Amino acid sequence: MSYYQRHIFFCVNDRGPNADRPCCGKCGTEALRAHAKQRIKALDLAGEGKVRVNSSGCLDRCEEGPVCVVYPDGIWYTFVDEFDIDEIVESHLVDGVPVERLRI
Amino acid sequence: MSYYQRHIFFCVNDRGPNADRPCCGKCGTEALRAHAKQRIKALDLAGEGKVRVNSSGCLDRCEEGPVCVVYPDGIWYTFVDEFDIDEIVESHLVDGVPVERLRI
Repeated sequence: MSYYQRHIFFCVNDRGPNADRPCCGKCGTEALRAHAKQRIKALDLAGEGKVRVNSSGCLDRCEEGPVCVVYPDGIWYTFVDEFDIDEIVESHLVDGVPVERLRI
Repeated sequence: MSYYQRHIFFCVNDRGPNADRPCCGKCGTEALRAHAKQRIKALDLAGEGKVRVNSSGCLDRCEEGPVCVVYPDGIWYTFVDEFDIDEIVESHLVDGVPVERLRI
């Protein structure tokens, strides 16, 4: 079994001004990652054998972003706001049911 | 199948001076992550369906660090230098054979 039952990585890469590709970091992903982390903590689901929420560098799916990926499942999402994040947390990270409407 | 066949995340978190826990970022992990990325690129293994090398925030295994994790396998390593990184790249990321001597 994995050290974490589910491990979610949010791309927070910011390419800066005048970049030739879009980037997740300009879409408020750092705040949404923090929101996910706070929700997991509030649900007492943080830690070994449970869930870990992380930021990451560029996941190279920029044109589909903002993106996050849940491992070991290998399931990718895009999202807009805290409502989407709450659904990923409660459905996928807690109950193990992927959120089909947000998958990429 | 996962978007990436194997996806490796290197913790590059640096807690700064006077921290009460060790941190991977003080162990040269950013340079070692860059080395891994360069090796994967040189082997023409970067991209969709192949391998992705990323940095991440704190993976919360600080006392066992520096650490990286390979998904979807969920296999964790510690490492010291480029020799260790080359072995992880060539054995695990290329051939799919975990490097037992470096596992945590």
